[in-house]
Amino acid sequence: VRELELIAAIRAALGARGGRVVRSSGDDAAVVRARPFAVSSIDTVVEGTHFRRSTHRPADIGWKALATALSDIAAMGADPGEAFVALVLPGDFEDVLELVASMEELAERTGTTIAGGDVASGPALTVTVAVTGWADSQEALVGRDGARPGDLVAVTGELGGSEVGRRHLEAGRRDGDLVGRHLRPQPRLAEGAALARAGVSAMIDLSDGLATDAGHVGAASGVQLVVRLERLPRPPGVTAEEAASGGDDYELLVTVPPERRTAAQEAARLTWIGEVVAASPAGTDTSSTGPGLVLLGADGARADLRGYEHA
Amino acid sequence: VRELELIAAIRAALGARGGRVVRSSGDDAAVVRARPFAVSSIDTVVEGTHFRRSTHRPADIGWKALATALSDIAAMGADPGEAFVALVLPGDFEDVLELVASMEELAERTGTTIAGGDVASGPALTVTVAVTGWADSQEALVGRDGARPGDLVAVTGELGGSEVGRRHLEAGRRDGDLVGRHLRPQPRLAEGAALARAGVSAMIDLSDGLATDAGHVGAASGVQLVVRLERLPRPPGVTAEEAASGGDDYELLVTVPPERRTAAQEAARLTWIGEVVAASPAGTDTSSTGPGLVLLGADGARADLRGYEHA
Repeated sequence: VRELELIAAIRAALGARGGRVVRSSGDDAAVVRARPFAVSSIDTVVEGTHFRRSTHRPADIGWKALATALSDIAAMGADPGEAFVALVLPGDFEDVLELVASMEELAERTGTTIAGGDVASGPALTVTVAVTGWADSQEALVGRDGARPGDLVAVTGELGGSEVGRRHLEAGRRDGDLVGRHLRPQPRLAEGAALARAGVSAMIDLSDGLATDAGHVGAASGVQLVVRLERLPRPPGVTAEEAASGGDDYELLVTVPPERRTAAQEAARLTWIGEVVAASPAGTDTSSTGPGLVLLGADGARADLRGYEHA
Repeated sequence: VRELELIAAIRAALGARGGRVVRSSGDDAAVVRARPFAVSSIDTVVEGTHFRRSTHRPADIGWKALATALSDIAAMGADPGEAFVALVLPGDFEDVLELVASMEELAERTGTTIAGGDVASGPALTVTVAVTGWADSQEALVGRDGARPGDLVAVTGELGGSEVGRRHLEAGRRDGDLVGRHLRPQPRLAEGAALARAGVSAMIDLSDGLATDAGHVGAASGVQLVVRLERLPRPPGVTAEEAASGGDDYELLVTVPPERRTAAQEAARLTWIGEVVAASPAGTDTSSTGPGLVLLGADGARADLRGYEHA
């Protein structure tokens, strides 16, 4: 009975009204007043794969699960809307209310309403978050496929800090700026919406690391992104290689038509890291000229780095 | 590499365009052309808690996960829209494409687009489905809180078959109508939308069993639902008690103002099982007169049954 009461409490916490939500907890589904375009994504984090309870506190786990989902909304340039949270709880996990409170804190900071949820028991703590953002037109949104030769490449914030912070955490350190970057990433919602308005041609969030994600933009757009390693912005204690390959920073990478450069720079603090060039047409792909990413080292030679692949 | 290829294949399968979906796979989030009201819910099923791989085939697991989520949309009277699927896959689970194909089959049958997904590894097979349905006005939707004294109570379909089927399955039988009801529940989407249009006052899907779910309608509406056990529609091999307490049928229970009785009966095949009476006001609740459900046995005495509680 105590467990059922707890589940009822969690479900109630995960079913708030407010914002655009006109029905939620107490009904089979939440009802949300829509805007013309819904932008939706789902992300799941699993104990042992994405985090360990020995190093990540419940509040960190909840925060990061919601932050990574919201980052997908940011990367499209949409405004945040609602989140739906499914929790799988092991029998020995007692701090679920701390996990949920942390999600609620981030939701409030970002203007997101947690409008529904589900709770089940299972062997590994699992947090799945489905998020929906909103936009008033398709033109207000930015995909990965709009990069064109001649565009410039830029990123928000600094890269590599989360991955180095993760290693510090595994080595037993819980303090320090880099550990904080790993545990509490900030979804760049305001930046994403402003960059979309400024007319960037493509956008992606850096979840798997620049070396992987910039390649996605190149592949989707049929172009080559040429990025210079030494230009990558990075915090103290992070090498250029770590900045290129480390995942989980959740900064945004954009491609920007030259005439939009000033507008983009006014929309968000950007570092310019490269440019877009034409790729060989399909069928004539080679590793050096096909669509994707080319990373150049300080000597101008190609650097061969892979991003962080999520399991 | 083979695993990454598989994950890429699953992600692509879980990111179809079509219907209202104008962007999906290949971008950070799906973009959906909205209607005025979005109706959303999230459901998670976990190996060992909701199913066992020894008794449930991958295709059954995928079907049921999507069916239960769609049932929440049906219970609001909304039209089906999009689904987002997060999979947690154990290393020894090889039939994920069969699981996904089954979800795609149900999606196609119901007019749902699977517009996004995520895949992670973990110790227990877990399928989380977030669904969104659509409606053109708030008045077109039905909650749990609209039942009023004098309304009639009805259900679609037959009850208890899924729970008895589950027991057959655990006893080693895989054939038979009741096992099929357990493994492949049918979300009552057309019935739910038609009943909403017919003016039912409250609606809920019977996931935890009538004894539990009818109580939710009574509690949310501040009324008492009086239901007669012997009127419960049930397939051969199911007792009235099993029909009242068995979960996972995913039929709909509605309350119907008397003047809407004919319209409701034309909207869906219904069995009339009871009526709504006034409950004692809050503060004077007693177990016999407070808001909720009263189940009456054949002798007219109260039957004390509890529904099936999902873990």
